[in-house]
Amino acid sequence: MTTAAPSLLKVSDTLHERRRFTEAEVEAYVGVSGDRNPVHMDDAFARDVGGFERGRVVHGMLVASLFPALVAAHFPGAVYARQTLKFVAPVYVGEEVLVQVEALNIRATATKYMVRFATKCFTGDGVSSLAIDGEAMAVLPSLHLRDNS
Amino acid sequence: MTTAAPSLLKVSDTLHERRRFTEAEVEAYVGVSGDRNPVHMDDAFARDVGGFERGRVVHGMLVASLFPALVAAHFPGAVYARQTLKFVAPVYVGEEVLVQVEALNIRATATKYMVRFATKCFTGDGVSSLAIDGEAMAVLPSLHLRDNS
Repeated sequence: MTTAAPSLLKVSDTLHERRRFTEAEVEAYVGVSGDRNPVHMDDAFARDVGGFERGRVVHGMLVASLFPALVAAHFPGAVYARQTLKFVAPVYVGEEVLVQVEALNIRATATKYMVRFATKCFTGDGVSSLAIDGEAMAVLPSLHLRDNS
Repeated sequence: MTTAAPSLLKVSDTLHERRRFTEAEVEAYVGVSGDRNPVHMDDAFARDVGGFERGRVVHGMLVASLFPALVAAHFPGAVYARQTLKFVAPVYVGEEVLVQVEALNIRATATKYMVRFATKCFTGDGVSSLAIDGEAMAVLPSLHLRDNS
């Protein structure tokens, strides 16, 4: 999909997406990652050992996969160079998250663009609370924003 | 599974695992993450736009999922607090990786253990090369090493 006048990414532009992870998706992720930690698979264990009062939580790295997914949806061919992740609060299976990446810095190289993003994930309706905080550095082939909204 | 004399994790202990990601696993990951970046799905695009000479690469965050998976395999109930990731070199679909976590620091709290790990992923046989470098902080319910070897 192209728009008549594609806009170019600039500093402080923000991309976001809402998403929730179903039980089946968490199970599929267990299959590919091999991460069978019972905090993701067993409500009682998640509560009693993990301290997660509402039971099973989504793997933090699965939630964090939404950051490069969001960048790539708008910039196909983006290549991830770095990511920092602070897992501040749990994301429960089935719970809606708001994922947000904000361009903090853009640097042109000979053929590409190095973009530093603030990467945040929130849970909750109304007064949202931070679940994951961090930053990413991605190499973009172009600053043309593909509109996926 | 329990062993007669379970060993306790100590600083400089290293856990490791070998793994490769098949095409089917990468496709399953595309399904759950929603990350349809063509560098993971299209050999020609990966070469021409991504600059990956051997074609499609595994999503960096999928490879990185092996770090918490490895920690959780030995310490069920481990909860991830932080992860830094530097994607140094690509991991190609079907390529074997060696994933390694090394305990750098162990701090006891009232009921759990905060452990800082060096997290590294290598590719290649013989002279291995670093693909992902970083550190993680995880909260472990116990230092008892579950032997999965």
